[in-house]
Amino acid sequence: MKTLAIHGGAGALPKSEMTQERAQEFHEALRYVLHVGYSCLNQGKPSLDAVEASVVALEDNPLFNAGRGSSFNRDGKIEMEAALMDGITLKAGASSLLRNVRNPVKLARKVMEKTPHVLLSAYAAEVFAQSEGLVMEADDYFFTTYRYEAMLKIRGSNKTPLSEDVVVPASLHSFTMSTVGAVACDVNHNLAAASSSGGTTNKYAGRVGQSCIVGAGVYANNKTCAVSCTGLGEAFMRALTAYDLSAQMEYKGSSLVDAAREVIHKKLNANGGLVSIDSKGGIAIQYTTQGMYRGWVTQEGRIFTAIYDSCFEWDLSGKVKSKDIKDPFN
Amino acid sequence: MKTLAIHGGAGALPKSEMTQERAQEFHEALRYVLHVGYSCLNQGKPSLDAVEASVVALEDNPLFNAGRGSSFNRDGKIEMEAALMDGITLKAGASSLLRNVRNPVKLARKVMEKTPHVLLSAYAAEVFAQSEGLVMEADDYFFTTYRYEAMLKIRGSNKTPLSEDVVVPASLHSFTMSTVGAVACDVNHNLAAASSSGGTTNKYAGRVGQSCIVGAGVYANNKTCAVSCTGLGEAFMRALTAYDLSAQMEYKGSSLVDAAREVIHKKLNANGGLVSIDSKGGIAIQYTTQGMYRGWVTQEGRIFTAIYDSCFEWDLSGKVKSKDIKDPFN
Repeated sequence: MKTLAIHGGAGALPKSEMTQERAQEFHEALRYVLHVGYSCLNQGKPSLDAVEASVVALEDNPLFNAGRGSSFNRDGKIEMEAALMDGITLKAGASSLLRNVRNPVKLARKVMEKTPHVLLSAYAAEVFAQSEGLVMEADDYFFTTYRYEAMLKIRGSNKTPLSEDVVVPASLHSFTMSTVGAVACDVNHNLAAASSSGGTTNKYAGRVGQSCIVGAGVYANNKTCAVSCTGLGEAFMRALTAYDLSAQMEYKGSSLVDAAREVIHKKLNANGGLVSIDSKGGIAIQYTTQGMYRGWVTQEGRIFTAIYDSCFEWDLSGKVKSKDIKDPFN
Repeated sequence: MKTLAIHGGAGALPKSEMTQERAQEFHEALRYVLHVGYSCLNQGKPSLDAVEASVVALEDNPLFNAGRGSSFNRDGKIEMEAALMDGITLKAGASSLLRNVRNPVKLARKVMEKTPHVLLSAYAAEVFAQSEGLVMEADDYFFTTYRYEAMLKIRGSNKTPLSEDVVVPASLHSFTMSTVGAVACDVNHNLAAASSSGGTTNKYAGRVGQSCIVGAGVYANNKTCAVSCTGLGEAFMRALTAYDLSAQMEYKGSSLVDAAREVIHKKLNANGGLVSIDSKGGIAIQYTTQGMYRGWVTQEGRIFTAIYDSCFEWDLSGKVKSKDIKDPFN
């Protein structure tokens, strides 16, 4: 019953800017992340380990807006955040406003396991990370010219694509709505979810987004589902999108697929998406943007990655089996 | 249809430590806060103004753990947080890890109205507060010997009453679970909610609690209810208690009273409480602790304050009409 789903952010590059080489690079990166996470599940490790390992792999890849390669705020600084949640115990850990922690999701797990708290933030959280032996990196490590120029471009044009009040052109989606995340179901039918993000390009210094808020950007409960969201964070924070999906399953008896559609396409007044699974092997992936970097491994062990509306299928050895499979979720 | 409900924290002083004089002081403080908030409603102001004004009055009173009189973390520092939400627009604002902002709830409103964000935190939030002309105070302003000694007592005894894993003796409830908040329904049937807190005594530096998390410690939606919570914040953050009350009304068709009972007495695995109202004039107040500082004004204009299981009723001029009315909610 092992399943895994990951995302590298709604708001993929617009099709017009996506070359075949670049798309291939993203597909391969997503496949590698699935390999990392699914290996955990195959070794019998809990879903919490699988989502953490998947998100670490996403954070370490500068293609995605989390960890290395994070977005810049309007002061030209990186402030990262992450959270994870365990569907068995409903325990959760999160951290925000991080500048030099290599893997924010590892800090989120330390907060969950080593403190009585859920959310630890800013300078004191970095001190705690160091005391727990987490790897710290200098500012340079996180820097990417691509993300820095994206910030300058938006700041320079005085656009603030930070709220659903502002119409964000599709060409800017990839700057504004990227986040990474993973959800997993392990061999014992236990669920877990994790999210991590550099946040919105050109955000205010001190802005905290959905990716570290339990119930907004991440939620897991064995009774219902595990969810990781991506998109204009403020809308998810006000709609409690991740928990709302669970609540619709628990209180209305909705299926995972119906609830995922409802929260993304009807209740969320903004662009974004999510990956979600249930403990019966079900997977639901929904988004409103032109594309979303994503991947999943079904309960039959089939491995898929996707950016727009068609998917790559991969074999276990990491070779492409097909490049033109219809997205089964949309 | 104007209604208002406020709280000054679950985990009131244990009855054994509460003198008649001290109880009178709390009742009068709560009555004054109701007067402030209800005056806004009587002047035809929106519920958002009423909850903000009520919480400002609670923050300014050192009897309560928010603003002046906030709890100390284990480093001997104060780090405050607040949030508010508008039930018409579902817009929300919040701020956390504040050291010198006199009224955190005012900053929360500025975040809501002047930025595209929901949550702004730590040093950058204080800079923003100053740029918006909010009153800043030196550390001394917030200091109370009572709260400082409470921290030393808990730190010294190596107790960390910060998680539901640790059994917190009732005598420590007043140190660990105080928060303030208000919910209101205005003449136009619009709802709003606000919360503010100094957080848990002896918390880690950098800990962010429920009072600044939309859906955990505060939520408002004209379709359902307005809620402000108090208690062991981490449990509320994992249970999304404020939003859960709304979700049970929306998806299960529960009444306000039933949903409030369910989320506090059945779904929350920790001590705490909440005040909540709906747009039909209904009020529900629930708590699991021995006492909760609280007050409310009914749609008929009757004014009540309470600490334990009996209530004071007040007339409009601020005189006590009765000191022995049975709590109508429990």
